[in-house]
Amino acid sequence: MRKLGLIAGGGGLPVEIAEHCLRAGRPLFVVRLKGFAGPELAPYAGAEIGIAELGKCIKALKRAGCEAICLVGNVSRPDFSALIPDLRGLAVLPAAIAAARKGDDALLRLMVGEFEKEGFAVEGAHEVMDDLGLPPGPLGRCAPGEEAQADLVRALEVARAIGRLDVGQAAVVCRGLVLAVEAQEGTDAMLARVAELPAALRGRPGAPCGVLAKAPKPIQETRVDLPTIGLATVQAVARAGLAGIAGEAGRLLVLDREAVIAMADELGVFIVGVESGQP
Amino acid sequence: MRKLGLIAGGGGLPVEIAEHCLRAGRPLFVVRLKGFAGPELAPYAGAEIGIAELGKCIKALKRAGCEAICLVGNVSRPDFSALIPDLRGLAVLPAAIAAARKGDDALLRLMVGEFEKEGFAVEGAHEVMDDLGLPPGPLGRCAPGEEAQADLVRALEVARAIGRLDVGQAAVVCRGLVLAVEAQEGTDAMLARVAELPAALRGRPGAPCGVLAKAPKPIQETRVDLPTIGLATVQAVARAGLAGIAGEAGRLLVLDREAVIAMADELGVFIVGVESGQP
Repeated sequence: MRKLGLIAGGGGLPVEIAEHCLRAGRPLFVVRLKGFAGPELAPYAGAEIGIAELGKCIKALKRAGCEAICLVGNVSRPDFSALIPDLRGLAVLPAAIAAARKGDDALLRLMVGEFEKEGFAVEGAHEVMDDLGLPPGPLGRCAPGEEAQADLVRALEVARAIGRLDVGQAAVVCRGLVLAVEAQEGTDAMLARVAELPAALRGRPGAPCGVLAKAPKPIQETRVDLPTIGLATVQAVARAGLAGIAGEAGRLLVLDREAVIAMADELGVFIVGVESGQP
Repeated sequence: MRKLGLIAGGGGLPVEIAEHCLRAGRPLFVVRLKGFAGPELAPYAGAEIGIAELGKCIKALKRAGCEAICLVGNVSRPDFSALIPDLRGLAVLPAAIAAARKGDDALLRLMVGEFEKEGFAVEGAHEVMDDLGLPPGPLGRCAPGEEAQADLVRALEVARAIGRLDVGQAAVVCRGLVLAVEAQEGTDAMLARVAELPAALRGRPGAPCGVLAKAPKPIQETRVDLPTIGLATVQAVARAGLAGIAGEAGRLLVLDREAVIAMADELGVFIVGVESGQP
């Protein structure tokens, strides 16, 4: 197996991938992005590198003998004026700022392009770790009823549509009404907001109603930024009175899968993978 | 002037319109929607009527001699299972529930159709009171700079696009990035959320950046539900660190205009009307 350079931002996904490589015996080098990567990654062979130190990053990956890279984890959009770029970072900065103006996705595509130019293969998290993607059909014991099915279709439609606008990846629909759409606040904050809406608009624990859908942006660099759910998502969905979660099969990453299934079954939340291209 | 039946939900707009009719000497009858209309409307000739009492509402308007109606003010989507409709309301209820599944706008169009069937002319708030709409160009002393102009164009584009999806009417863009999109939470809650985002993503009071745009849904019944701004909007925009507000000329209602202009000038917030069809 070719050696993987894991370029790690925050959250649980980079840790999960590093553990997977360890188990699978895949050689690994971890670039811990300064200010983002968690301390769980410190024990792995690797280096801590600032997000604008592109030259240092590429040099470290090459010296370590990496042939492929995987960019994962949360990195909030940088304050470009506060960055301390190295020479290579400086060379890319004007293009990065211009790309950032067009949205998150343009910025990610630019970064992927820089690594490809250097000869690295770019692997998506779901390619490194193939049981990470949501399978088609219900993931746990719960499945959507008729009303939830209609909400699921509309929520996926809205999530895809706002993705086309490069706005975000997630939407909540309850009884045909779009309750919330995600932009920069993140899914957890969006779900917390749904829980605060007038009770007549939404479901409640015990009588859940409505669906959270997450879909990748159609123009998205799916090797880098696939939507993700985890334990916190399932809990927040239940707290918001929603009936379930929908995503595109293979294109929604499920972190900590066993625990997620157990929690979803316990809380009565469905998680459904819809085949890409299906409504 | 033909007598106006003002069907009033919550908020400042119905009060402003009632005062306008009083000043202009236009005969008026106010239907105060139970649970929504404010107490300021109680002194006007009128009646308090539940939102599902369509028969009673039509009868009252006809008995009062109204030839036109104007539907204004906030009415949160009803919990249909908790409504107590009269016979006429009951006849419309199945269609109303079906329309509600398709989004807010379908429901409003249905209600407008019911009043038109009864022979009422339906006037938009901006038709009853023609200085209510945002004029083209800057409203106060402030105008957008170059960066804000680019954000303004993108924010209007996103607001229109989410309107086409019948999701909502407002969006916030800062340095090309969509910070927030409005669904059911309302503009004020959306702006409060922007103020909570990481500082690197947004402006701040003193160094404002970013634009709130509000646009009617393209399929929208503009006689009923035009987007609105008021004093609270201007204050929330300043608190969120945004530079200004954009809307379509004639299709964004400005409540309490003199006070709004004074406040915007004081806080350094621009308010710009863009000609419909312009970017």
